Amino acid sequence: MDWIARDAQVVWHGFTQMDCYAQNEPVIVERAEGRELIDVHGKRYLDAISSLWVTTLGHRVPELDQALHEQIDRVAHTTLLGNGNRVVIEFAEALASVVPLDRPHVLFASDGASAVEQALKIAFQYWANLGVAGKHTYLAFGEAYHGDTIGGLSLGGGGFGTEVFKPLRFPVLRAPSFQDPHALRVAAQVVRERASELTAVVVEPRVQGAAGMLIAAADQFAQLQTACNETGVLLICDEVATGFGRTGNLFASEQCNLRPDLMCLGKGITGGYLPMSATLANERVFDAFRGPDLSDRTLYHGHSYGGNALAAAVALKHLELMRKWNVLDNVRERSSQLEAQLSSISRTRFPIRDIRIAGLMCAVELKSEGHARLARRVCAAMVRRGVLARSLGDNVILVPPLTVTADEIDCIVSVLQASLEELLT
Amino acid sequence: MDWIARDAQVVWHGFTQMDCYAQNEPVIVERAEGRELIDVHGKRYLDAISSLWVTTLGHRVPELDQALHEQIDRVAHTTLLGNGNRVVIEFAEALASVVPLDRPHVLFASDGASAVEQALKIAFQYWANLGVAGKHTYLAFGEAYHGDTIGGLSLGGGGFGTEVFKPLRFPVLRAPSFQDPHALRVAAQVVRERASELTAVVVEPRVQGAAGMLIAAADQFAQLQTACNETGVLLICDEVATGFGRTGNLFASEQCNLRPDLMCLGKGITGGYLPMSATLANERVFDAFRGPDLSDRTLYHGHSYGGNALAAAVALKHLELMRKWNVLDNVRERSSQLEAQLSSISRTRFPIRDIRIAGLMCAVELKSEGHARLARRVCAAMVRRGVLARSLGDNVILVPPLTVTADEIDCIVSVLQASLEELLT
Repeated sequence: MDWIARDAQVVWHGFTQMDCYAQNEPVIVERAEGRELIDVHGKRYLDAISSLWVTTLGHRVPELDQALHEQIDRVAHTTLLGNGNRVVIEFAEALASVVPLDRPHVLFASDGASAVEQALKIAFQYWANLGVAGKHTYLAFGEAYHGDTIGGLSLGGGGFGTEVFKPLRFPVLRAPSFQDPHALRVAAQVVRERASELTAVVVEPRVQGAAGMLIAAADQFAQLQTACNETGVLLICDEVATGFGRTGNLFASEQCNLRPDLMCLGKGITGGYLPMSATLANERVFDAFRGPDLSDRTLYHGHSYGGNALAAAVALKHLELMRKWNVLDNVRERSSQLEAQLSSISRTRFPIRDIRIAGLMCAVELKSEGHARLARRVCAAMVRRGVLARSLGDNVILVPPLTVTADEIDCIVSVLQASLEELLT
Repeated sequence: MDWIARDAQVVWHGFTQMDCYAQNEPVIVERAEGRELIDVHGKRYLDAISSLWVTTLGHRVPELDQALHEQIDRVAHTTLLGNGNRVVIEFAEALASVVPLDRPHVLFASDGASAVEQALKIAFQYWANLGVAGKHTYLAFGEAYHGDTIGGLSLGGGGFGTEVFKPLRFPVLRAPSFQDPHALRVAAQVVRERASELTAVVVEPRVQGAAGMLIAAADQFAQLQTACNETGVLLICDEVATGFGRTGNLFASEQCNLRPDLMCLGKGITGGYLPMSATLANERVFDAFRGPDLSDRTLYHGHSYGGNALAAAVALKHLELMRKWNVLDNVRERSSQLEAQLSSISRTRFPIRDIRIAGLMCAVELKSEGHARLARRVCAAMVRRGVLARSLGDNVILVPPLTVTADEIDCIVSVLQASLEELLT
């Protein structure tokens, strides 16, 4: 039996209609080199989705591999519940020194959604610990995506397939999506008007990724920060997708001049190697949980593998390489190149509705009229040509590794154009 | 600055009152050998809590380390959304062949709580996909623990520190905890009476771990299985804590003669090395999600690092070693030894209320009258004597690695006794 059939028989792939899995020609990866994935037949693919937005420096980075090999020879994992681990402390110190939060503490988990759940629970208990009653809701944005667990789903703005779970979700206040140029102004206004009910406002700084790369101008965020400062409503920045250089700054909050009370991180935190996520809390929030031992001011939340030592070792080395290799410069240069080259694709020949890009998060939105599942079929054609892409609704999503070269950007754009030609002419 | 102070300055430890963290003499681990952790000062500790119930074969197992080193040289991670990875398929096949489910499919995540969230969402959408209306609630047990995310918290039976989050939790029906000898009979009755509203019943087979190792007799579970069979209500077994040999069978469901529709796994799945969790669904459940591509019958849920290749490589080797080394035989023998030795501790000299044990999940419940935080102080005394233990309410919890030796069990019991003597005489 071939690998695809074996796969379909035992694995349930997320966000995937399994009945069509085999027909959709999935790539079964066996190994990788740099930014290329190599499948079980030896065929190579440029990983233009960074293995779903997690890979930063590429695969099989010798320095990251070395850090892992060395940590294996110390210890793979020990619990952080009530005890510590040296490499985790070292990584938390390195992380705390680069995030835009005041004297942050780091609470680790492994799934990005768990980092969001931690943030929303910390925000909720913060007010209870202070003895402030009635602050029981959140403000979130339309089309927001904050993960698939019930808390994340509740904050999320009604993505595809979420309606069925409505009876399980808690209600939140909703600002417009970033498609509305007034989204941030409206949000700031809601914060002011409803502050007495609001636990926190939750935002994806700059880019609503899973919504199809909806982008708000960086200067729009100041009014939200001001409204939070004036009302005391907590600001939670969900940087699971945008963090670790993806938008051209180490964190998108920096571009937006945001200093959140809580920040959620995941994906790029280990360079795409290992599951790790983290919730960072500033001093104001952290101090509200201080109290007598075993008291109800404590945060009773913790995941078994939070602060995994192997993940911390690779995350520590990754942060060092991001700086040493000037990765952010490359993100900005390749982003400009990608934007320029995509803009030069003829919109009269091809049904392109919009191109949205921030750093190396990019969506090419197609007009689907008359072409059923066009974005999906374009991505399939790109995969056949050796560039791994994935569609999101009508969007062809391009999220290459942060170390992508100029030649590789050329390749991605020309393969996209060739695929459009194949399907439309 | 010393490691404890550095730790307290940047890390937020789960389930830990950080204001007292340093005073509680945490162990800062640097490396490990076998079942011993070694701290930053070179002091050794027998890991009698298996790094919070995750370590199975011990730390630094040469065969597991080797599997990791080899996978690093292939690839660390590639996405499972719409695509596959060879080592993940191999592990899913191995896992599918040993779980007590009919033709299971495996949906991966990284936190145990996420596996529970996946199961509860799959169960909920299952009925929607079948077009059955009104099945919007769950039956769960008193004192149940199913993780700390909002969905898991909703299923959970009111553990310490959860009350504050009540406005965020969805309501569920509640059977008694395993402290009630009729818990399973009552649950079976509720399933029959409320089947038309019930999505699923969620149970920790045999042992309610986080509740303090509350144990139900294995033969009590048949009536629950029968009620589910007769009504069609889905059965979800949460084996995050009990799975992978912890209770003396590979899965506690086997002891209880349960064949769940959905099963949640985590902790021991990678032998305690790397974050991985999984939700398994039987054919009945999986088939209800088959449908046209991009249709609303699809499960729109997926975590970025679900099906991590490094975690899969170590999990695959771990399953092989469990069998090859006859680990389950050792669990049963050491469990009998531990039970016998604990029973011989004088209950007239020491305030022991109860000893509960199933496999290598053990709670020694102390009477706390007149001795504030006695279990906590006993565990601290054990740690000073080189045995890492952790309290849970009035319980001293003992969860040693599954490969623990007879001498190490001797050591744990004598250190427990010496610690009781130190504090009480």
